[in-house]
Amino acid sequence: MTEKIHADLMIKGGTVLTMTDGRPIENGAVALNGDTIVFVGTDRDAAGRCTAEKQIDASGCVVMPGLVNGHTHAAMSLFRGIADDLPLEQWLSDYIFPAEKNNLDDDFVYWGTKLACAEMLLGGVTTFCDMYLFEESAARAAKEMGMRGVLGEVLYDFDSPNYGPIDNGFAYTEAFIKKWKDDPLIVPSIQPHALDTCSPDLLVRAREISDTYGVRSIVHVAESKGNVAHVREKYGKSSFAYLDDLGVLNERFVAIHAVWVDAEEIGIMHDRGVSVVTNPESNMKLASGWAPMHNYLERGITVGIGTDGCASNNDLDLFGEMDTLAKLHKVYDADPTHMNARTVTEIATRKGACALGLGDITGTLATGKKADIIVIDFNKPHLTPVYNPYSHLVYAAKSADVRDVVVNGQLLVQNARLTKADPAEIMAKGRELAERVNKSIG
Amino acid sequence: MTEKIHADLMIKGGTVLTMTDGRPIENGAVALNGDTIVFVGTDRDAAGRCTAEKQIDASGCVVMPGLVNGHTHAAMSLFRGIADDLPLEQWLSDYIFPAEKNNLDDDFVYWGTKLACAEMLLGGVTTFCDMYLFEESAARAAKEMGMRGVLGEVLYDFDSPNYGPIDNGFAYTEAFIKKWKDDPLIVPSIQPHALDTCSPDLLVRAREISDTYGVRSIVHVAESKGNVAHVREKYGKSSFAYLDDLGVLNERFVAIHAVWVDAEEIGIMHDRGVSVVTNPESNMKLASGWAPMHNYLERGITVGIGTDGCASNNDLDLFGEMDTLAKLHKVYDADPTHMNARTVTEIATRKGACALGLGDITGTLATGKKADIIVIDFNKPHLTPVYNPYSHLVYAAKSADVRDVVVNGQLLVQNARLTKADPAEIMAKGRELAERVNKSIG
Repeated sequence: MTEKIHADLMIKGGTVLTMTDGRPIENGAVALNGDTIVFVGTDRDAAGRCTAEKQIDASGCVVMPGLVNGHTHAAMSLFRGIADDLPLEQWLSDYIFPAEKNNLDDDFVYWGTKLACAEMLLGGVTTFCDMYLFEESAARAAKEMGMRGVLGEVLYDFDSPNYGPIDNGFAYTEAFIKKWKDDPLIVPSIQPHALDTCSPDLLVRAREISDTYGVRSIVHVAESKGNVAHVREKYGKSSFAYLDDLGVLNERFVAIHAVWVDAEEIGIMHDRGVSVVTNPESNMKLASGWAPMHNYLERGITVGIGTDGCASNNDLDLFGEMDTLAKLHKVYDADPTHMNARTVTEIATRKGACALGLGDITGTLATGKKADIIVIDFNKPHLTPVYNPYSHLVYAAKSADVRDVVVNGQLLVQNARLTKADPAEIMAKGRELAERVNKSIG
Repeated sequence: MTEKIHADLMIKGGTVLTMTDGRPIENGAVALNGDTIVFVGTDRDAAGRCTAEKQIDASGCVVMPGLVNGHTHAAMSLFRGIADDLPLEQWLSDYIFPAEKNNLDDDFVYWGTKLACAEMLLGGVTTFCDMYLFEESAARAAKEMGMRGVLGEVLYDFDSPNYGPIDNGFAYTEAFIKKWKDDPLIVPSIQPHALDTCSPDLLVRAREISDTYGVRSIVHVAESKGNVAHVREKYGKSSFAYLDDLGVLNERFVAIHAVWVDAEEIGIMHDRGVSVVTNPESNMKLASGWAPMHNYLERGITVGIGTDGCASNNDLDLFGEMDTLAKLHKVYDADPTHMNARTVTEIATRKGACALGLGDITGTLATGKKADIIVIDFNKPHLTPVYNPYSHLVYAAKSADVRDVVVNGQLLVQNARLTKADPAEIMAKGRELAERVNKSIG
């Protein structure tokens, strides 16, 4: 006789995509107790084995793991649309840098991150990876919003508006790691900015901290042709040959973007166990290029997907990003079979979680994993009829179709509304801060 | 003293984008009487001049012309997601052709078009251009849904499941044109399929009908490298040189796709006054390529944007299409200044209307134009704060942000719900027909 399972919440009646290797479970059920998934299977099996305090009817819906936004600068939500359609240098020097220089502080990052979390939760993102300044305030905001986050203060050679000189940056980062390392939601990391903004010494020190604390080291690499030319000119090497010679590549290293890399570099990335997070819409909008995703997948490199910050996208919408990821690589590779819908869905869930070192925690629906679950309402004209749920997720579903969101066992979105946060307050604060930004850029 | 204006409905308090050459009107007002716009200006001016039976408060919203979906096969909504990520030939021969052969009839096209209209209206599309079979039923569906449509039966050399041999196709088309030519919503057209499926004789006969009745002639041209190779092999010419030599190009000719064209062809298109409708997401998903949009714009060629059918996209979402259009061409052209947000919004409204010959009817908000108006709710986390409304429309807004939709003076969507159609009935019918489709492809 099988043991009875007690659950706080059961989500039943929907099509369950576990994102493990199984097929979709029609009339499926997912149950959780506390912060943990305790049952995944059919409604029928659940009826015999589970008792649940509360049930959510997911008929006509898809139930799947929460999405993983593998790279963002969350508080840049407050710079959304501040400037677009400009050459990169002008965009940075006339708008983004002055806006950051004159506005960033703990309060700004706190509210900007809250606004970003509100958007992400409503769009089915349960985990995000954030690189920004005043990250202690980003962590506080994410924690209050109930989101899972891999967070790290951005480090670079020049003085930071937050910590000042880089030595303070390392101290800030170590304190941050120590403070959050046992938190159930916030996962600390070290995040050197990029190869043209960080000295070799900075990158090596970052690796030492990554080793000491076992945290992810997350770095923008080879985003643009300009980045690559800089490394080539200064160090006489390709980006990944340079990083490898520094000894900083390992299975905890996450390369953000990795657009302009050659076959030799892909070999290095594979051999060292490096993960990649691609940001297709940001790379397109800034006209940077596109990552060789098909080659990464063929080599078995772990890949996630991110939105990048709102100044270069301009949203935190993983559904849009999945759709674009699939289509961009088909047309670029001139092969419609590349980046199929199932693969893209894996990148936004299981693979993305693995890239961030959270493969044992989130990214699939399986007993023992943390309960990060989303329910997507397919009862809409644009999702009717349904021949293949993966196809709909990538090519037709939108962030606004997300109905319910559970993070770490907490029901944070129900019927497309935040249950614990007040979006009106967050938006009002966002508008107030935007007025200050407007003044600061004249 | 200025004359008082009587209006049935006034939409006030929002940011009005007229899509004429003017700047956004903050605290703007748009009023309509019957099917016609009678006032566009500020709230303050409206207060002194207009009396309105009914008012809609658009505070915090953007008010703009309805979007124009320049190309679709609407009833293919019922084939949404039936097969993806396949080589073109396999996709067509194993899925699309059998599905069409075994399922298409008046009932299927009627319900498929209704489903498509429901999706488009909810997503802010007020005008669509449709090429499909059993178009009489598409027209009936569109008319019942209250949408504006430029519709035409697809014509090709082989027998059609609807009309049989091509002579009947011309008869069907002439009857269709005569029936609908004075309709306030349905605009008839002639729509030969493509250069590899239509003989020179067919294309010339289509032009004669276009001349006789003054209707648009709408043709898929140069969608794929294969299309172009076919024309080159058979006629020894480029696509547009061939069409020009046939004498079929003029200002009523609309080229759908026009992806693979050379500089000489762009010159011909310009000289003959041909319009183009680009379908970026479909071209990406089928790995066909991308149209030289920047060159078209530089030459002053009138361009619209379309979704194509749901089997190759897989939705009818103009917001997604605008976002993709901007980003695709920036990255392809390696220039972030290309396809700026304002230009893209024009393509989806005014320019798209002009491409379809409806420039005097719709596509802008101006007194005397038909009242095709949408209200987009910016009171959302992902649209906060607002620095630039065009930026948000293209890079952050989603179809689900559309709150209210007026077509030809009728309020068809209010608070994101259809006011006159029953989506539950349409979706139920769609699911029923999809079961039949599933059986037909085994």
